[in-house]
Amino acid sequence: MATINKDIDTLVINTIRTLAPDVVQKANSGHPGAPMGCAPMAHILYSKFITVNPKQPHWINRDRFVLSNGHGCALLYIMLHLTGHNITMDDLKGFRALDSKTPGHPEANHGVDGIEVTTGPLGQGIASAVGLAIAEAQLAATFNKPKYELIDNYTYVILGDGCMQEGVQAEAVSLAGHLQLGKLIALYDDNHVQIDGDTALGFTEDVVKRYEAYGWHVQVITDGDHDVDGITAAIEKAKAVTDKPSLIKVRTTIGFGSKNQGLEKVHGAPLGEPDIESVKTKLGFKSDQKFYVPQEVYDFYKEIGKKAEKKTEEWYQLLDAYTKEYPELASELKRRLAKKLPNGFKEALPKYTPADPAVATRKLSEMVLNKIAPLIPEFIGGSADLTGSNLTRWKGAEDFQPPSTKLGTYAGRYIRFGVREHGMAAICNGIAAYGAHISFGATFFNFISYALGAVRLSALSKHHVLYIMTHDSIGLGEDGPTHQPIETLAEMRAIPRILNFRPADGNEVSGSYLAAFEEQERPSVLILTRQNLPQLEGSTIEAVRKGAYVLQGKEGKADICFVATGSEVSLAVEAAAELAKQNIKSRVVSMPCWELFADQDIEYQQSVFPEGVPVVSIEAMSTFGWDRWAHASIGIDRFGASAPYKDLYKKFGLVPDVVADKAKKVIEFYKGRTPENKLLRPFPY
Amino acid sequence: MATINKDIDTLVINTIRTLAPDVVQKANSGHPGAPMGCAPMAHILYSKFITVNPKQPHWINRDRFVLSNGHGCALLYIMLHLTGHNITMDDLKGFRALDSKTPGHPEANHGVDGIEVTTGPLGQGIASAVGLAIAEAQLAATFNKPKYELIDNYTYVILGDGCMQEGVQAEAVSLAGHLQLGKLIALYDDNHVQIDGDTALGFTEDVVKRYEAYGWHVQVITDGDHDVDGITAAIEKAKAVTDKPSLIKVRTTIGFGSKNQGLEKVHGAPLGEPDIESVKTKLGFKSDQKFYVPQEVYDFYKEIGKKAEKKTEEWYQLLDAYTKEYPELASELKRRLAKKLPNGFKEALPKYTPADPAVATRKLSEMVLNKIAPLIPEFIGGSADLTGSNLTRWKGAEDFQPPSTKLGTYAGRYIRFGVREHGMAAICNGIAAYGAHISFGATFFNFISYALGAVRLSALSKHHVLYIMTHDSIGLGEDGPTHQPIETLAEMRAIPRILNFRPADGNEVSGSYLAAFEEQERPSVLILTRQNLPQLEGSTIEAVRKGAYVLQGKEGKADICFVATGSEVSLAVEAAAELAKQNIKSRVVSMPCWELFADQDIEYQQSVFPEGVPVVSIEAMSTFGWDRWAHASIGIDRFGASAPYKDLYKKFGLVPDVVADKAKKVIEFYKGRTPENKLLRPFPY
Repeated sequence: MATINKDIDTLVINTIRTLAPDVVQKANSGHPGAPMGCAPMAHILYSKFITVNPKQPHWINRDRFVLSNGHGCALLYIMLHLTGHNITMDDLKGFRALDSKTPGHPEANHGVDGIEVTTGPLGQGIASAVGLAIAEAQLAATFNKPKYELIDNYTYVILGDGCMQEGVQAEAVSLAGHLQLGKLIALYDDNHVQIDGDTALGFTEDVVKRYEAYGWHVQVITDGDHDVDGITAAIEKAKAVTDKPSLIKVRTTIGFGSKNQGLEKVHGAPLGEPDIESVKTKLGFKSDQKFYVPQEVYDFYKEIGKKAEKKTEEWYQLLDAYTKEYPELASELKRRLAKKLPNGFKEALPKYTPADPAVATRKLSEMVLNKIAPLIPEFIGGSADLTGSNLTRWKGAEDFQPPSTKLGTYAGRYIRFGVREHGMAAICNGIAAYGAHISFGATFFNFISYALGAVRLSALSKHHVLYIMTHDSIGLGEDGPTHQPIETLAEMRAIPRILNFRPADGNEVSGSYLAAFEEQERPSVLILTRQNLPQLEGSTIEAVRKGAYVLQGKEGKADICFVATGSEVSLAVEAAAELAKQNIKSRVVSMPCWELFADQDIEYQQSVFPEGVPVVSIEAMSTFGWDRWAHASIGIDRFGASAPYKDLYKKFGLVPDVVADKAKKVIEFYKGRTPENKLLRPFPY
Repeated sequence: MATINKDIDTLVINTIRTLAPDVVQKANSGHPGAPMGCAPMAHILYSKFITVNPKQPHWINRDRFVLSNGHGCALLYIMLHLTGHNITMDDLKGFRALDSKTPGHPEANHGVDGIEVTTGPLGQGIASAVGLAIAEAQLAATFNKPKYELIDNYTYVILGDGCMQEGVQAEAVSLAGHLQLGKLIALYDDNHVQIDGDTALGFTEDVVKRYEAYGWHVQVITDGDHDVDGITAAIEKAKAVTDKPSLIKVRTTIGFGSKNQGLEKVHGAPLGEPDIESVKTKLGFKSDQKFYVPQEVYDFYKEIGKKAEKKTEEWYQLLDAYTKEYPELASELKRRLAKKLPNGFKEALPKYTPADPAVATRKLSEMVLNKIAPLIPEFIGGSADLTGSNLTRWKGAEDFQPPSTKLGTYAGRYIRFGVREHGMAAICNGIAAYGAHISFGATFFNFISYALGAVRLSALSKHHVLYIMTHDSIGLGEDGPTHQPIETLAEMRAIPRILNFRPADGNEVSGSYLAAFEEQERPSVLILTRQNLPQLEGSTIEAVRKGAYVLQGKEGKADICFVATGSEVSLAVEAAAELAKQNIKSRVVSMPCWELFADQDIEYQQSVFPEGVPVVSIEAMSTFGWDRWAHASIGIDRFGASAPYKDLYKKFGLVPDVVADKAKKVIEFYKGRTPENKLLRPFPY
């Protein structure tokens, strides 16, 4: 048996090593080196460790595999093909072609089963894998019962030198060590080659020692090109270490088999036909046979697939038994996997009237969380060490912590991310990707700029993540320009497929959370004040869904229309009152979510911004982008300053009389002519 | 002598520990804990190690001090006050007040001497300090001669737990270890407290072991509250280790002296008067005496200042002697310190005619670098492991490397940053801040999103940094949406005080570099294509300075005006040709730099976009923000896709016939009415 396995192992590995260059060559673009070097690791993982069932690709207890060096995705596509996922040989031939299922880097939630998280931007895969492992641990602690280990999957990762150098990796794996995520097992493709050449050029740290410093269990394999038994044994050993994540450093040869193996040349460009032919000959394949998978290889993986199917079947039987013994827990688990929100959460959202006191929206957010976090047990996340400022820890929250720390349990849902914004966002992606949670991360809004690499992947990968961002403008006051977002909201609005909410009061905070929870395929950003804001006449929870609505001045033709968000809506109301004294009629539009308003039909949009009325936007930050809706903009097109916030609002002219004066200039400007209708466009875009 | 010093040390330290809470209390905002805990370290550094001369604050060979935990800036302001820099006691009393010299976090280049780099956003200080140390090593290797150690300053850093958790820190210090920056000495304020509480909540890694893994020399001080001799000896020892950067882990008590010392409570809020009085009593001060500095303390630092003045004088004498012996080198050094660009570099910029072949702007950038990098020896930088893609290594470049690696020397100017984008940007800030270099960093444009935390500080701190960003759109093709910038240029345009250049051909690439080198107080981003672009009729180097200009169709009234940047300018030209066949007259405006165009007077702007002609923007990315200049926009308001770039341009309608059709829709749309004049605004903003 051992001998046969050995043979088939070699055959599979060499199949990958010959198929990958074909895939890249046909596309005339891509990265052959990593697939050829990582072939043994990938094959060992998929044949001996990973249980996945292509017929049940979303089975919650499947093992997760993340190719963090996503540029090597020819390898992942080949493994998904061999294991019977929905990638055909034609899909492999369509590598990197228009509208193919095999794009240049692996994209999660884009129709291909078995791609757990989007990778390619370096460091994201390993960091998101930490999130996958957190999700597993949390779900297991929540639902497992004696005799019912419903959730016990592993998260396997391959990562390369590029990932190892990224800060997002460092942040996430440090936290993973603290969290003692024993089911996270990462194989480090230590090939000594990066794009610039030998890693000796700039990466000479002792990775083993560094990971040990993080509290990881570390092993080293010196011949990763051939040592199937060694790699297998190391993974077995890693599984046996249950209180530490594991790193296995595997010395490999990039582009193994190529004439240029071990050199940068094989990293990011096709090998060329002559070299490919030479590889095939060297590895015992016919030099002119392209896209070839021996039938034995297909057969071998078919057998593995059968085993996985059996395991899945057994799992569903286990679930049936569990359902009988723990009907409520089972129904709760099923609800979560079906991505249905629990009943009653909408009704629990706080409502306000103008008689209620002024409260900071971050505080209103806390009040929402106090109400709904207990009702939505799939909600899990935390702050990048700003809990007391972000106000994200609800009453009765338990920390997600290894029990040995006595600081919480794995069933806890509040994560102490530490000062690790980028890691936090990538981890949130992984938690959401696992499939049983809605994740959230929190920091000061300005510091989402540390995390944008991961935030854009939340949007690209359609993850249900909430970013709770407080201290949203110069309104944070004394911390000054290093902490005051000026460009940040414009940056966020420019990202496709993401919802940015900047609520103006309590009702809008509730409405923003409602929309953020209901929108499953767009991440949401909640942008909240440090300072108190009054409860507005005219605001409602429901109105947020439309993105913008007329708060005041709905009746009759206005002379001027203010549109504002967040803390500047009450400023618009005050400016309108100022103008009313001068017999100038204003409309005030609150626009908590630009993107949702853009989604509305033109009739609704025109009911908000009627033809002929000039629109003035007010936001205590960059005016960049506001020409979309407004004929003039009041904002701050420079960096902020350090002072008590009321002084800053005055300094920057964000006070009712200055706003009213500017509005009058706009009215004067448009006297006798019609302001452009911003809602009509010659063609849609 | 030793006894007296001991006494004065204690007196100074206790002065800081009593003054800092006063400063924070008066502002009713700020962070007293770190200054009280770090007082011994800061005093030891400033009294025994740091040579700075407030009368010559920009003296190039001064020691650099960076308070990476910038929230503790009351400490820095106090030290600058004691050492005689331009911070008065009144400035301390104006802490965090409007327009004071003592904002909430230290801001470099904002009028206060002795603030080397902006800190507060965590991790930035230590990462920029790596840049300061690189700059020192490079300048020393370039100018020092036997008997003339002109450049030999140290870079000292204090950093806290927050910095230690940030990925940007991890990236930069890993590189610092590789680079063997022996003159970089960092003191780690190991106080076990962060905002969420005890660091045990999420930061349990072994920092000593991690830094050793990076190749740092690490020491530990167990009683950082009192052990003046121990800290002093450790810094001495660190100085003696010349081939490794040093970390000294100093166990301290946050808020030392407060009733709540050692607790999170003292981190980020004033202590309150009763506690402050108690601190003063405990430390031997009068409980009701505020903002008190004993005369002995002033006198003590006056003596230290005199020593520094003497050292400065000696240095200038050395420079005089050096000038006699090495007149050319001396004049070159003086040119650089005066921030004068060398003669002849403008003339060396390549010029092109339409007869020249189509070339990718990244390649044109390489041709510029080949010409001018040898002429501008202050130009130093590199790529985040994408040298062969960014094409940033000019012919004859030498690597900046420790000589022992035999890969380069410290006189080299090409830095192998590794896959460390955020660290790279922060290091570039530090290099520029040193005062003798123009720094640059390179990666794919999409991955500037990894680095925005530092890039915004380049702008805030007015650093002369160039970001050379290639692969600027879907034009990168097969790598797909994970690598294709969509929102990125809009994000960059939203940042205040930064210049974004997206040149369309060779002349514009040359012009962009010219502007980027001449603009000293705004960082520049050069946004370059992977794919070839034709050399355009009508482009010039000089025109770039205006930000936008009429490339074609200057004469006569146009029916439509295209405005485009980079690769889409030639598309606009082709669309105009298509329309010309249909007797529709187009103007084509190239806008390589939006920000410089916004700087122009209204007359020039109107000469580019004449009244009455509808404007259509074309950019192969988000249309976000284009309503500023254009009446309609052609772009991509979704994520990109993976395919050869020509397929993508077609898929997204960025081909001449589709563009021409859209232009006709715009003409039709505005038939019989005047499009809004986008250049006129009711009030300036």
